[in-house]
Amino acid sequence: MGQFYTTIAFLIGGFTSIVSGYVGMRIATFTNVRTTYECAEDIHKGFVVAYRGGQVLGFVLVGLALLILQIIIIIYKAIYLDGRKYGPVNPKVPVEEDKNPIKQLFETVSGYGLGGSTVALFGRVGGGIYTKAADVGSDLAGKNVQGLPEDSPDNPGVIADNVGDNVGDIAGMGADLFGSLAESTCAALVVGSTSDDLVKKEDAIYFPLMITGVGVIASFLTTFLATNVGKVTKENVERTVKIQLIVSTLLMALMTIPIIFVLPDTFHFYDVFGTPDIACTRWKAFGCVNFGLWSGLIIGYITEVYTSNAYSPVQNLAEACCMGAAPNIILGLALGYFSCIIPIFCIAFTIYGSFMFGGMYGIALSALGMLGCLPIALAIDGYGPISDNAGGIAEMAGLHESVREKTDKLDAAGNTTAAIGKGFAIGSACLVSLALFGAFCTRAQLPGLNVLSAIEFSSLLLGAMLPYAFSAFTMQAVGDAANEMIAEISNQFADGLIMKGEKKPNYDSCIAISTKASLKKMIVPGLMVIGSPLILGALFGPNAVGGLLAGCIVSGVQIAFSFSNTGGAWDNAKKYVEAGTHYTKNFIDPETRQKVLMKKKTECHQAAVTGDTVGDPLKDTSGPAINILIKLSAITSLVFGSFFNKHHAFNMS
Amino acid sequence: MGQFYTTIAFLIGGFTSIVSGYVGMRIATFTNVRTTYECAEDIHKGFVVAYRGGQVLGFVLVGLALLILQIIIIIYKAIYLDGRKYGPVNPKVPVEEDKNPIKQLFETVSGYGLGGSTVALFGRVGGGIYTKAADVGSDLAGKNVQGLPEDSPDNPGVIADNVGDNVGDIAGMGADLFGSLAESTCAALVVGSTSDDLVKKEDAIYFPLMITGVGVIASFLTTFLATNVGKVTKENVERTVKIQLIVSTLLMALMTIPIIFVLPDTFHFYDVFGTPDIACTRWKAFGCVNFGLWSGLIIGYITEVYTSNAYSPVQNLAEACCMGAAPNIILGLALGYFSCIIPIFCIAFTIYGSFMFGGMYGIALSALGMLGCLPIALAIDGYGPISDNAGGIAEMAGLHESVREKTDKLDAAGNTTAAIGKGFAIGSACLVSLALFGAFCTRAQLPGLNVLSAIEFSSLLLGAMLPYAFSAFTMQAVGDAANEMIAEISNQFADGLIMKGEKKPNYDSCIAISTKASLKKMIVPGLMVIGSPLILGALFGPNAVGGLLAGCIVSGVQIAFSFSNTGGAWDNAKKYVEAGTHYTKNFIDPETRQKVLMKKKTECHQAAVTGDTVGDPLKDTSGPAINILIKLSAITSLVFGSFFNKHHAFNMS
Repeated sequence: MGQFYTTIAFLIGGFTSIVSGYVGMRIATFTNVRTTYECAEDIHKGFVVAYRGGQVLGFVLVGLALLILQIIIIIYKAIYLDGRKYGPVNPKVPVEEDKNPIKQLFETVSGYGLGGSTVALFGRVGGGIYTKAADVGSDLAGKNVQGLPEDSPDNPGVIADNVGDNVGDIAGMGADLFGSLAESTCAALVVGSTSDDLVKKEDAIYFPLMITGVGVIASFLTTFLATNVGKVTKENVERTVKIQLIVSTLLMALMTIPIIFVLPDTFHFYDVFGTPDIACTRWKAFGCVNFGLWSGLIIGYITEVYTSNAYSPVQNLAEACCMGAAPNIILGLALGYFSCIIPIFCIAFTIYGSFMFGGMYGIALSALGMLGCLPIALAIDGYGPISDNAGGIAEMAGLHESVREKTDKLDAAGNTTAAIGKGFAIGSACLVSLALFGAFCTRAQLPGLNVLSAIEFSSLLLGAMLPYAFSAFTMQAVGDAANEMIAEISNQFADGLIMKGEKKPNYDSCIAISTKASLKKMIVPGLMVIGSPLILGALFGPNAVGGLLAGCIVSGVQIAFSFSNTGGAWDNAKKYVEAGTHYTKNFIDPETRQKVLMKKKTECHQAAVTGDTVGDPLKDTSGPAINILIKLSAITSLVFGSFFNKHHAFNMS
Repeated sequence: MGQFYTTIAFLIGGFTSIVSGYVGMRIATFTNVRTTYECAEDIHKGFVVAYRGGQVLGFVLVGLALLILQIIIIIYKAIYLDGRKYGPVNPKVPVEEDKNPIKQLFETVSGYGLGGSTVALFGRVGGGIYTKAADVGSDLAGKNVQGLPEDSPDNPGVIADNVGDNVGDIAGMGADLFGSLAESTCAALVVGSTSDDLVKKEDAIYFPLMITGVGVIASFLTTFLATNVGKVTKENVERTVKIQLIVSTLLMALMTIPIIFVLPDTFHFYDVFGTPDIACTRWKAFGCVNFGLWSGLIIGYITEVYTSNAYSPVQNLAEACCMGAAPNIILGLALGYFSCIIPIFCIAFTIYGSFMFGGMYGIALSALGMLGCLPIALAIDGYGPISDNAGGIAEMAGLHESVREKTDKLDAAGNTTAAIGKGFAIGSACLVSLALFGAFCTRAQLPGLNVLSAIEFSSLLLGAMLPYAFSAFTMQAVGDAANEMIAEISNQFADGLIMKGEKKPNYDSCIAISTKASLKKMIVPGLMVIGSPLILGALFGPNAVGGLLAGCIVSGVQIAFSFSNTGGAWDNAKKYVEAGTHYTKNFIDPETRQKVLMKKKTECHQAAVTGDTVGDPLKDTSGPAINILIKLSAITSLVFGSFFNKHHAFNMS
C-alpha cells in the first residue's frame, strides 16, 4: 500500500509545482506590459506593479505547497492511523506497517517532495537550456551580426528570448525552490517521526510546517513596506528590495519564538542502534532555524557584494574589460571562486551547529529556516524577469527612451537580487540534500559512512565528478541549441528582407527550436542525475551511494556558487561599462596614457559583452541546475534506500 | 631524536629537489640553442637534441631522488637499528623508539618527501605565477597593442617569458613530480613497515624503491627507440613521443614481474586495533602497480584526445572560435569538465582495486606504478619548453622562416605531451595524497572517518572549497602580476623609440617584476595550503583534518584535470586556426553563407587567442598548483598527525 500512496503524493507534488509555475508565468506575462505602462509615468508605480507580480508567485507557490501538503497529511493520517493510537517508536524494530504508522505515514508523504523535485528537473534544467539557447542565439545572430539593438522586434529570436526569461527564472526558479521547500519539510517530518517525544506531544510533529507558515506571515507583513512606505526612485530600487530581505528575516526570527512552544521541552533522537544519542530542546530547535535564516541572509549579502556593481569586485572586473576579453574572463572566474569562501563557511557553520543541536532534524530545520522568507525571495526573484520583459515591451512598442531607461533601472536591481535569490537557492539546496542524505542513511540502515575505505572513497571521488560532468552536458546543450538558433536566425536574415522592413520575422520557428532543444538536451543530464545513484546502488550497495551523494553535494555547491556569482558579476560589469559614466581607476590606456571612460561601442564594451555571454549559461543554466542534481540524486537515493540495502550485485564489506 | 633526523631528511629532500631543478634548467638553456641550430638543417636532428635534453632532466631527477633516498635509509638504519635486530611489529603497542625501530626509521625518512614537496610549492606555485605573468603581460602589451610577433626581441617581456617557460615547466614540473615520487615512496615505506611479514623478509620492505629502479631501466631502454629507430619528420613527431609512453609502460609492466619475488608470498597488514585485516600477496602487489601504471596511460591517452588538435574536441573548439570568443570560452570550459569523466573513473577504479588488494600499501604502490615511467614523462615534459624556447631563439636571431616552422612543429607536439604529463602529475598527486591521507589516519589513530557527523561533514565541505579559494588566489596573482608587467612594458614603449629601433628594450626590469611578483604572490596561497590543516587540526582535532583532506582531494583533482585540459585545448585550438589550412565543418558564415577557412588575422583567430590567453593561467598556474595543494596539505597533516590527536581546543566526539 505504501508505494501506492507514495505515488499519489508524488503526482500531487508534481502537479502542485506545475500549477505554481503556471500561475507564476501567467501573472508575469500579465504584469510585464502593465509595468511598462506604469513606467511611462513613474518608476515608483512601475516598481510596485512588477514587485506585486512577483509577490503573487511567491505567496501562491508557498501557500499552495503548504496547504496541499497539509491536506495530504490529514487524508493519509485518516487512512494510516485508522483508529489506531500514535504507535510506539523504536528504531530497533524493523519498520513494518503495523509497528510504526507515524513513520510510515511521513515516508509516504515524502513522495510529495520527490514529485516537486522531478518537475524542477524540467523547470530548471530544461528551462535553463530554453532561455539561454534563445538568449545567446539571438544575441549572437541578431545583435552582433546584424547590429540590432537588444529586444528589437526585427530579431526573430526576440520572443523566444522573452519567453525564456519566464520559463527559466519564473517557472524554473519556482519549481526549484518549491522542491527545496517540499523536500526539507518532508525530511524534517520523516526524521521528526523517529522521535518518540515529538510523536507523543500533540502537534509537535508539525513544527516544520509551522516554520513555513510563520514565514508566510512575516513575508506578508514585510511586503507592505515595499509598496507602501517611502517612494521608489531610480536610485533606491536596489536598496528597497534589499531592505525587504532584512526586515523579513528579522520578523521571521522573532515570530518563530511563539511556535517553538509546540515542541516538548526536550526531545530525543535515536541512532540506528536504537540508543538515544541526541537530546534536542525547543530552544536548540529555535537555534537551528536561526542558523539557517541568518546564514541565508549573510550568503545573500556576500552574493550582492560580489555581483552588484555598487561594490569593488564588479567595478574591478569592468575595469579589466579595458585590457581585453581574456583578463575579464580570468578575473571573472577568479571572482566566482573567491565568492565561494564566505558562503561555504556559513553553510559549514550552519551544518555544524544544527547537527550538534539536533542531528539531522536540526539540519532539516535550518534548511526550513533558510527558506523561511521564501515568499519574499520568490517575489524578488519574479520581479526580475517581469522588469526585464517590461523593458523588452518598451523597446518593441517603440516607446520613448526614458521609459526604457526606467525599466532598465528596475532590471538592474533585478539582476543583483536574482543573484541573491540564487545564493539562497544554492545554500538551501545544500542543506536540504544533506538532510535527505541523512534520511537516506537512516533508511538504508548505514550506521555511518567511513570514507577511509575502498568503495566509499572511490564513490566520493566519482560523486565529486558528477557536477562537472553535469555542467559539461548542460553547457554543451546550450551551445548546441544556440547554434541551431543562430542557423535559423541567419537563415531568416539571409534574403535581407527583414532588415529592409519588407518581411516580418518568424518568431514561432525560434520558439519551436528552443522548446525542442530544451526537452531533447535535458535527457542525458536528467538520466545522469537519477541514474548515477541507482546504478551505483544496484552494483555496490548503500555505502557507495552514500559516498556518491557526499561527494556530489560538497563539490556541486562550490560550482553552483561560483557559476552563479561569476555570471552575475559579468552581467553587471557589462551594465557598469554601458552606463558610460565611469572612468577606470587604475587602468591607463597604453597609447593615450590616460584613464579611460568606459562606454558602449568600445573594445572595452566588446570584452564586457563577451564576459556576459559566457556567464549566461553559467548563471542561468548550469549553475542553478546543480541544485537539482544534488537534491534529486539525494531524494532518489532516499526512495530506493532500503532496496539498495537488500539487493546489490557485489558485496563490498 | 626523531625530530632532528626528520629535519635533516627534510633539508636533504628540499636540496635534492633544488639540485634537480637547477640541473634541468641548466640543461634546458644549454639545449635550446642547439635545437634551433639543428633545426636549421633537419627536424630529426633538432628533435633528438631537444628530447635528449629532456632525458637529462628525467634521469637526473629520478636517479638523484632514488639514490639519495637510499643513502639516507642506509645511514639512518645504521643509526636507528644500532645493532638491534628488526624489531617485532605490533600496532597494539604504542609507537616508541625502542619498540618499533623500523617504523620509526621510515617515519623519520618521510621528512624527505615533505622537503621535496615544500620546494615544489615554490617551483609550481611561484614558478607558475612567474611564467604566466610574463607570458600574459608580454602578449597583451607587446603582441596585441604593438602588433609585435611572438618572441620578438623588441618586446621587453620576451626574455622573462622564455625564462618563465623554464621556471614553470622544467623546475616547477620537476619539483612537483619529484615530490610525488618521494612522497609516494615514503608513504609506501611507512605503511610497509607496519607489516610484520614485510619487515622480517630480507629486502622486502624496499620493494617500493625497486619499482622506481625498474622504471629507470625501462625508461632507459625505451629512449633508445626515440632517437635511434626511425626518423622523425614533421608529421610523426607527436606519434614518436606517444610511442615512447606506450613502450615504456609495457616494458615496465613486464620488468616488474621479477622484482615482486622479493616480497613474501603473502603478507598481512593490521588495522588500528591490531587485528590483521588485509592479506596481500606478491601478485596482488603486482596488480596494484599495474593499476597505477595502466590507468596513467589511459589518463594520458584521454588527455591527448581532449587536447590534441588531431581529434574532434579541439577541432570543434577551433570551429567555435568562428562564432566568437564567448562560444569558444563556453565550449572550452565544457570540454575541460567533460575531460574529467574518464580519468576520474580510472582513478576511482585504481583506488578501489588497489585498496581491496593491499589497503593503503596498495594505494602507495599504485601511485608508484603511475610514476613508474617518470623518466620518460619528464623527458617528454622537458622537451616541450626546450622546443618552445628554440623557436624563440630562431625568431630573435632572425633565422629563416623554415627553421621557425620546424621548431613550431616540435613545440606543437610538446604542447600535447605537456598536457599528457600534467595528466600523469594530477593522477599521481591524487593517489599520493590518498596514501598520505591513509598514513595520517594511522598516525592520528583514527579508526575511520565517518562523514555522517557534524565536524566531518562541515570540514569535508570546507575542504572541497579549498581548491576554489586556492585557484582564485593564484589566478588573481597572475592577473595582478600581468598588470604590473603590462604597465612596465607600456612604459617602455611610451616614447616610441623601441619600435623605431632607436632603443633596446630593458629585459631585466620585466624579469625583476616576474621574480618579485611570483615570490610575493605565493605567500597567501602557500599559507593557505599549510595553514588550513594546522588551524583546523589545532581547533577541532584529527577528524576535522581528515574531512578537510578528503574534501580537498576529491574536489581538487577535478579542478586540476579540467583546468589543465581546457587550457591545453584552447592552446591547440589556436594553433589549429593558425595553421590556416582548415575549413570549418559545420559553421556557415552568416553573411557569405559558406564554410570558412580558419586562419590568422581574422576574428576567428582573435577569439582563439582570447581562449588561449584565458587558458594560460589555468593550465600553467592554477591547475598544476592544485597538485601541490592536495599533496602538501596531506603531508603537513601527516607530520602533525599525532599532535592533533593529543592537543586540540574543542572536543568534538
